[in-house]
Amino acid sequence: MSAPVIVPVALGARAYDIRIGSGLLQQLGRDVAAAGARTAAVVTDENVARLHLDTVRASLDDAHLINSAAVIPSGEGSKSFKHLEEVCSRLLDAKIERGDVVIAFGGGVVGDLAGFAASILRRGVRVIQVPTSLLAQVDSSVGGKTGINTKAGKNLIGAFHQPSLVLADTDVLDTLPDREFRAGYAEVVKYGLIDDAGFFGWLEKHWGNVFQGGADRTKAIATSCASKASIVGRDEFETGDRALLNLGHTFGHALEAAVGYDGARLVHGEGVAIGMALAFQFSVRLGLAAPEDAQRVVDHLKAAGLPTRIQDIPGEVGDADRLLDLMAQDKKVKAGRLTFILARGIGRSFVAPDVPPQNAREFLKAALDGSITG
Amino acid sequence: MSAPVIVPVALGARAYDIRIGSGLLQQLGRDVAAAGARTAAVVTDENVARLHLDTVRASLDDAHLINSAAVIPSGEGSKSFKHLEEVCSRLLDAKIERGDVVIAFGGGVVGDLAGFAASILRRGVRVIQVPTSLLAQVDSSVGGKTGINTKAGKNLIGAFHQPSLVLADTDVLDTLPDREFRAGYAEVVKYGLIDDAGFFGWLEKHWGNVFQGGADRTKAIATSCASKASIVGRDEFETGDRALLNLGHTFGHALEAAVGYDGARLVHGEGVAIGMALAFQFSVRLGLAAPEDAQRVVDHLKAAGLPTRIQDIPGEVGDADRLLDLMAQDKKVKAGRLTFILARGIGRSFVAPDVPPQNAREFLKAALDGSITG
Repeated sequence: MSAPVIVPVALGARAYDIRIGSGLLQQLGRDVAAAGARTAAVVTDENVARLHLDTVRASLDDAHLINSAAVIPSGEGSKSFKHLEEVCSRLLDAKIERGDVVIAFGGGVVGDLAGFAASILRRGVRVIQVPTSLLAQVDSSVGGKTGINTKAGKNLIGAFHQPSLVLADTDVLDTLPDREFRAGYAEVVKYGLIDDAGFFGWLEKHWGNVFQGGADRTKAIATSCASKASIVGRDEFETGDRALLNLGHTFGHALEAAVGYDGARLVHGEGVAIGMALAFQFSVRLGLAAPEDAQRVVDHLKAAGLPTRIQDIPGEVGDADRLLDLMAQDKKVKAGRLTFILARGIGRSFVAPDVPPQNAREFLKAALDGSITG
Repeated sequence: MSAPVIVPVALGARAYDIRIGSGLLQQLGRDVAAAGARTAAVVTDENVARLHLDTVRASLDDAHLINSAAVIPSGEGSKSFKHLEEVCSRLLDAKIERGDVVIAFGGGVVGDLAGFAASILRRGVRVIQVPTSLLAQVDSSVGGKTGINTKAGKNLIGAFHQPSLVLADTDVLDTLPDREFRAGYAEVVKYGLIDDAGFFGWLEKHWGNVFQGGADRTKAIATSCASKASIVGRDEFETGDRALLNLGHTFGHALEAAVGYDGARLVHGEGVAIGMALAFQFSVRLGLAAPEDAQRVVDHLKAAGLPTRIQDIPGEVGDADRLLDLMAQDKKVKAGRLTFILARGIGRSFVAPDVPPQNAREFLKAALDGSITG
C-alpha cells in the first residue's frame, strides 16, 4: 500500500482534496473524525453494501463515531424524489446535524442522490464522497454536481454541493463488473478528447493496463481528476468552460431518456461513449473536424469494448424528432437554442451554444438510418 | 400611489432590493422583463390565485412574457415533498430554463416552497419573491431561506437561495384575514425585541395604525425588512448572528409540530408570539431579564390580539418531554445541546448555544402547569 495521490480542487472556501490510492476504506473513520464530525451516516446501495459496508462501518467504529447506514436499491431508478425523501428521512432519524457528515459510498447514483440529500438536509450538511465505481471516481464524485432524475429528463433537479473530501480507493474497482468498468472508462477517454490529446494518445497505447489495475490505472484516474478539478476550479457553476465536461452528454442523456433509464439496455457511460462518437461525427459533418479524428475516437472506444452507434443499443429508441425533443428538455438549453460540445479535433473541444435544431435533426436522421458509419 | 421604499440587501454577488409600496403587482411584468427573462412561472396558492392572479398574469402578458401558473392548495400542508415534486414538474413543463424566473406569489408557504423548487430546478434558477402576507413581507420572503417540512419537523429540508428581487405590495395586505395579519405582526414585534427597543416602543404606541394601513404600516414593514437585511448581510448562512431571527422560534416550531401543523389550531406567527413570550419568561427564570420586560412583551402581544401562553392553543399539545423532543429535532441543535434565543431585556436578545435541557424541561413544566403567568 503506497501513499495516495492527492489532487487538490481549488475552490476558495469550498476547496477540498481528492485522495486516490489503495486501502483508503480502512482509514475512512480516521478521516471523518479528523473533519470534526461526531456522527456519520453512510448512504450506499445494495451491491456496495454487500461487498464493502462492513469494512467502512468497522473503520467508523474504530474511530469512535456514531454511525448508521441507509441502503438504497442499486441502479439509476434510485435517483428519484421517492428515494430522495426516504434518504432524507433516514438522515433525520440518524440525527445528522450541521457539523456531522454524510458519506456517499457507492457509484454515481449514490453520489448524486446522497450528495443532493446532504445539500438540502438542514439546508446543507457536509458530504464525503467515497466513489466505488470508475465513473464516480473520475467524474461524478468530483465537482459538486448532485441531483435526481424526473420523467422530463436526467439530473433536472439538483444542487451544486461540493464534497468536503473525496476518497477514491482503487482497490474497490477490482470488484466492479466488467461492463461497469468499461462504462466508466468512457469518461476517462472524455478528458483526453476535451483538451489533452497527449492523454488520449497515452490511453490508446495503455488502456489495457488501465483495465488491468496498478500504477497505470491510478495514473489514469489521477489525470482525469486533475483535469476535472481544473475545469471546475475555473467555472464552478457552469456558466462557461465547465460545459466542456458535457462532451458526449447531450446525445448521451437523450439516449438514456429514450430507453427510460433502463440500465439493462444502456448505462450512463455507454451513452457517453455513443455521445462522444456522435459529437465527433457531428463535428465532421459541420466541417469542423477531420473524419480521421472521428474515426480515431470510434476505433478507441470500440477497442475498449464500448458502443459507438445508436444501433448498438438493444431495442427501439425512437426517431430523430423524439431524440431532439429529449435534448431540448435537457438543462443545457438556453433560450430555445441547443448547446452542443463539438470538436475541431482530438483534444480540441469547445462549447457551441447556438446549434440550429435543424442541423441536429438532419445529423440524427443520418445517424439513425446508418448512413454515418464508423 | 407614491414611489416604493427600497431596502437593499447587501450580499455581494447575490445582492438584491426589497421594494415596498402600493401598486407593485401591476408593474410586475416590467420588473421581470427588466431582469432579462423570457419566461416566467408563477407559483401561488388557491386563495391568492382567486384574489390576485389575474392582475399578475395581465402584467406579465403586457410585458410580452411567456407565463404560466401553478396553483397549490393553501396552507402549511403544501410544504411537503409531494408538493415540491409537483411544483418542480410544473416548472419543467413550463420549460423554465436557467435565465428565466420563478415568481413566488403568496405567503410564507408559497415563498418557501417555490423558492426551494427554484433552487433545485436545473440546480438553481432565479426566483422573485412577491409576498402577499404580512409575515412573508417582513420575514420569509427576505434572506433566502427556503424549505419544506417533514414529519420530523419544520423546514428540516431546504436550501439557502436568495431571491433576485422582492416586491412587497402593501395593497394586497388589505385582503388578508384578520388572524393572518395579526400572526404576521408577531414577526414585526420580533425585530423590536431582538435589537431595537425604540422600534418596540414605537409599536406599543402605533400598532393600531399598522393594522389600519397607510404610512405607519409601510414604515413598520420597511423597518422590519431593513432589520432582517442587516442581520442576513452579516451572516447569510446562519453561522452566528442570524440565529437571532429565531427569537421565539425554538418554542414556536415545537408547538407547531405538536399540533401537527394544524393551522386551525396554531399558525406560524401565533407560535412565534407564544414562543417570544416564553423566551422572555425563560430569560427571567434564568435570571437574565427583569420580569417587567417579559410583562411588557406579553402585554403588547395580547393587546394586538395574539396568544402568549401554551394554554391559548386549543386542544392538547403534550407534556414537557414531548415538546423538548420536538425541539431537539429542530435543526438549531449542535452536538446535542439546545440553542435558544434569550434576552437580557427588550431589544437585547442574544444567542444562547448551550442551554442545559434540564433547565428547559423545568421551565416548560412550569409553563404547562400554569405556574408562569402573564
